[in-house]
Amino acid sequence: MSKIAILGHGVVGSGAAEVFFKNRESIRAKTGQNADIKYILEVRDASAFPGCSYSDKFVNDFDVILNDSEVTVVAELIGGVEPAYRFVKSSLSAGKSVVTSNKELVAKKGAELLKIAREKNVSFAFEASVGGGIPIIRPLHQCLAADSINEVAGILNGTTNFILTKMFRDGMAFEEALKLAQDNGYAERDPSDDVNGVDACRKICILASMIFGKQVNPDSVFTEGITKITREDISFCESRGGTVKLIARAVKNGDSPQVTVCPAFVHKDSQLAGVNDVYNAIMVRGEATGDVVFYGKGAGKFPTASAVVNDIVNALKSPGETGALFWEEDEQPISPPVFSEVCGNIRVLEGF
Amino acid sequence: MSKIAILGHGVVGSGAAEVFFKNRESIRAKTGQNADIKYILEVRDASAFPGCSYSDKFVNDFDVILNDSEVTVVAELIGGVEPAYRFVKSSLSAGKSVVTSNKELVAKKGAELLKIAREKNVSFAFEASVGGGIPIIRPLHQCLAADSINEVAGILNGTTNFILTKMFRDGMAFEEALKLAQDNGYAERDPSDDVNGVDACRKICILASMIFGKQVNPDSVFTEGITKITREDISFCESRGGTVKLIARAVKNGDSPQVTVCPAFVHKDSQLAGVNDVYNAIMVRGEATGDVVFYGKGAGKFPTASAVVNDIVNALKSPGETGALFWEEDEQPISPPVFSEVCGNIRVLEGF
Repeated sequence: MSKIAILGHGVVGSGAAEVFFKNRESIRAKTGQNADIKYILEVRDASAFPGCSYSDKFVNDFDVILNDSEVTVVAELIGGVEPAYRFVKSSLSAGKSVVTSNKELVAKKGAELLKIAREKNVSFAFEASVGGGIPIIRPLHQCLAADSINEVAGILNGTTNFILTKMFRDGMAFEEALKLAQDNGYAERDPSDDVNGVDACRKICILASMIFGKQVNPDSVFTEGITKITREDISFCESRGGTVKLIARAVKNGDSPQVTVCPAFVHKDSQLAGVNDVYNAIMVRGEATGDVVFYGKGAGKFPTASAVVNDIVNALKSPGETGALFWEEDEQPISPPVFSEVCGNIRVLEGF
Repeated sequence: MSKIAILGHGVVGSGAAEVFFKNRESIRAKTGQNADIKYILEVRDASAFPGCSYSDKFVNDFDVILNDSEVTVVAELIGGVEPAYRFVKSSLSAGKSVVTSNKELVAKKGAELLKIAREKNVSFAFEASVGGGIPIIRPLHQCLAADSINEVAGILNGTTNFILTKMFRDGMAFEEALKLAQDNGYAERDPSDDVNGVDACRKICILASMIFGKQVNPDSVFTEGITKITREDISFCESRGGTVKLIARAVKNGDSPQVTVCPAFVHKDSQLAGVNDVYNAIMVRGEATGDVVFYGKGAGKFPTASAVVNDIVNALKSPGETGALFWEEDEQPISPPVFSEVCGNIRVLEGF
């Protein structure tokens, strides 16, 4: 028992395997279980990964994993909705815990998957889906237990934050900064999900679903990317004593809940102003707690892999421990966005 | 069953009662238990709290609580080692979960109390002991599960951070800034534990015990306060392109583990440089995760009370869930401190 299957051997999948094997002894001590990775699901053959020390674990048929009752934890690190959704749903339905870094899946199907996990008394954990290695899902869930959270806002996409930092600090144009990000491996060849705000939108939908208690549909969220940002926009922010950040934000706001993703003015005194390069930061505004900010690398192989392995350890230790975390499948209606001011491509948000 | 006893009705104790009653219905929904506060232990009579809506709950004999088997969770919010230690130890030994905000108690007796909690399969939780309302104990514990943490460093005392901010920004002398802190309720009439670094030392000892796995004794920690900081010290930091902060730090450093508390230079690009006034920030440096920073109000009635109530909710929901959190009673030997440079009363720490 206590065997783990990893779905996908891309950047995060191979990182998770590496982090797991490196910490295997301490994980065994911590969980009191003789846990090990039994399978790695990959469409590519093991020969595609020469020198890989665990090539005996590669399989390309998901049913091998699904039908192996020794596998108690499945780590879904494929990304996208299909086939990830099918794999995750059938794993949970078969009584296996699932951990994932897949923000699109959680943003679109989170409520349903959490419900199945609850019914089966197994875990569905997704710490790595928001903020990479920054612990945010569990702390936010903790905060929600005894505090009223009115707002979550932050810089949730490292690629766009790198680009905006270069535009602001070094006067680069958008295209030039994007090219630099790609050359550094911070942006994909097709960067559209990042630069158009889609990635940040999925992440804020997960956090918004948690604080609203209902599924927030990414399609209902006002989302603007950073592709139109000009030198004039940067100058405007500078002249106002601040900077520009792609801010993803969810506010309870009584009967008019708002969720927005847009390039926004951030005053230099804000804790979010000093968050530069590929770093992320998430501000949680609680009634009793006040503002709490979580800061760190929001992406990258090892930060994200480390969050995945944390979730695996928790699922091994206490399957079902995520049972208190859920939101309803009913869609949360979102009100049209309200901005204090709009100047060029910059939105001014209240309180920023 | 599921009755709670609160020990102490001072700032944090009364705040915890208030936060609990305000969120009682949602706590009941979350824990699935008909939980309530049954007792509040206070040496003062209920008449000392006129208008208090729950004066029927006041008792002044701890044995009433200890001998009531309905009480499953005890929140120790008295502070200091005695009688808190006796109350906590006997509660745990009687199979009751304990939550506390008492950093002195955890710094000095943490290993022993965690051991008893483990043996009795109940919780001993102390999220509120470090960083007030900032979630740090649980996230750090999470990070430790699948990552090697090499360093924890931060601004752990709000009073001294307020004073240093006023000295740096407004050119105030130490005495003047201390007076302002006292007038604002940010410093106690006897501020010695804060300004001498003792409070920060207790907090870093708790975090250091977690990352080293052995009890770190506050007496073994090089601790300097901020009382000697002069205008010249401030100017030195300014001229170096940074500021001064009271930094509490624990570094693994192979065979020479270091734990220090001292006024230190912090470069303006550091995430800790912009942490001003009564705010706290804690940086966790993990091998895989990279730097993660937790920021928020490190003290105050409601942030701290909210952390206490979070711990109560967790203890109700899953007594014993803190079982994986422990460190050995053996004392961790600490090496003499090494500084990159010393200038006046300012220490320059490597990497700051």
